[in-house]
Amino acid sequence: MTDQSPTAAHFEARLRRIGDERYHDKHPFHHLLHSGGCTMDQVQAWVINRYYYQSRIPMKDAAFLSRLDDPKMRRIWRSRIEDHDGTDTHEGGIARWLRLAEGVGLDPEYVSSGVGILPATRFAVDAYVRFVRDEPLLPAVASSLTELFAPKIHKDRIAGLLQHYDFANPETTAYFQHRLTEAPKDVAFGLKWVLDNAITQADQDAAANALIFKTEVLWAQLDALWSAYVEPGRIPPGAWQPGEGQA
Amino acid sequence: MTDQSPTAAHFEARLRRIGDERYHDKHPFHHLLHSGGCTMDQVQAWVINRYYYQSRIPMKDAAFLSRLDDPKMRRIWRSRIEDHDGTDTHEGGIARWLRLAEGVGLDPEYVSSGVGILPATRFAVDAYVRFVRDEPLLPAVASSLTELFAPKIHKDRIAGLLQHYDFANPETTAYFQHRLTEAPKDVAFGLKWVLDNAITQADQDAAANALIFKTEVLWAQLDALWSAYVEPGRIPPGAWQPGEGQA
Repeated sequence: MTDQSPTAAHFEARLRRIGDERYHDKHPFHHLLHSGGCTMDQVQAWVINRYYYQSRIPMKDAAFLSRLDDPKMRRIWRSRIEDHDGTDTHEGGIARWLRLAEGVGLDPEYVSSGVGILPATRFAVDAYVRFVRDEPLLPAVASSLTELFAPKIHKDRIAGLLQHYDFANPETTAYFQHRLTEAPKDVAFGLKWVLDNAITQADQDAAANALIFKTEVLWAQLDALWSAYVEPGRIPPGAWQPGEGQA
Repeated sequence: MTDQSPTAAHFEARLRRIGDERYHDKHPFHHLLHSGGCTMDQVQAWVINRYYYQSRIPMKDAAFLSRLDDPKMRRIWRSRIEDHDGTDTHEGGIARWLRLAEGVGLDPEYVSSGVGILPATRFAVDAYVRFVRDEPLLPAVASSLTELFAPKIHKDRIAGLLQHYDFANPETTAYFQHRLTEAPKDVAFGLKWVLDNAITQADQDAAANALIFKTEVLWAQLDALWSAYVEPGRIPPGAWQPGEGQA
């Protein structure tokens, strides 16, 4: 942004540094996935658990919408729900994720049932939904700014999946392809709003802490996935066992 | 209980089976801890993270108390808060836990600050507090019934710590010693209340699911501890690093 004050520029740099240090593109699960090192069981475990995150995003955005008294901002924010849930004319991200699930050999009904999701995934994702529902608007918006860092990981993912896995094709990777245009649109609004509204040092600290919290939500999901299905590979009681939920 | 109906006996057996299958005494972290296999860094990591759980228990019980309109039941339930927070004449469980923290070489102020706690610990524990705050009273009470299974693990822990670790003595293990009498008192009330109030199949299912949920809260904390400090030993960004917070 060229028209921002030195303070805003400094604050934006602080937010971007949080991504450099904590965004889940640094987690080794993503290196494993994108380099073709995952077994199909591990890919399926990722698709099942990440579905829970996807499924809660529009609920999170609806909770946020319910707190906005400005129709203009509600109209802008509402597009996030449409991106995930779809419209009469456009398929949404959740349907695209379920096509990925089918593509990796899973029964989409099993995946959308939520059975077998790691409890740690639920605890982390639910914490995010509640954060956006309960915290002041500024941290609620700031927690969405991990989208600043998303396009790079989505590009890496598309390339890595297409190169290394038989299941990958334009159909099964459509979710990520669409996020390449959706996320920058969302974050252009969200970042400007945060920069305009985080005036005091306390505001900026609250926004930065919200972004850190969100990186923790993402990181914890991959730690749980790694623990259950990579190393030590100890699946918590009741969670998905390889072979379950196949198409 | 000798005076219960066949249905109640069957239901109690169902609840106890959940403990047999899912309680965290089966988690390998406890085997490592009780057999003397933990390094002092691992013991410290456990004490720091488990403190967060301890610290939220009286908040959970206060949330529950705030929903009870029966003064008699509030008076009974209130003793749980006193057990943890203490009274004018009796030290509470939180103070005892901080003596354990000191005993293992940690600065109790660092531990009680909450700095360095694993995000996954927070997500799991906060999910428990919210469950008890938001769910109907029956599942809220049922989620406390992991105390049915606690005396055995506390006995094993006291014996294992005293046998294997220099820091262990009656002072540093006082927390567990007191739980041996507190937990059975609490659970005698809680179990009877659940058995008396879970009449329909739907009630019993809700209560059983609440107890499963609680075992997941406990298990997820140990999985996160294992992942960060045992295997693979990858500490999430911002979480406690060995050497921090020493007395």
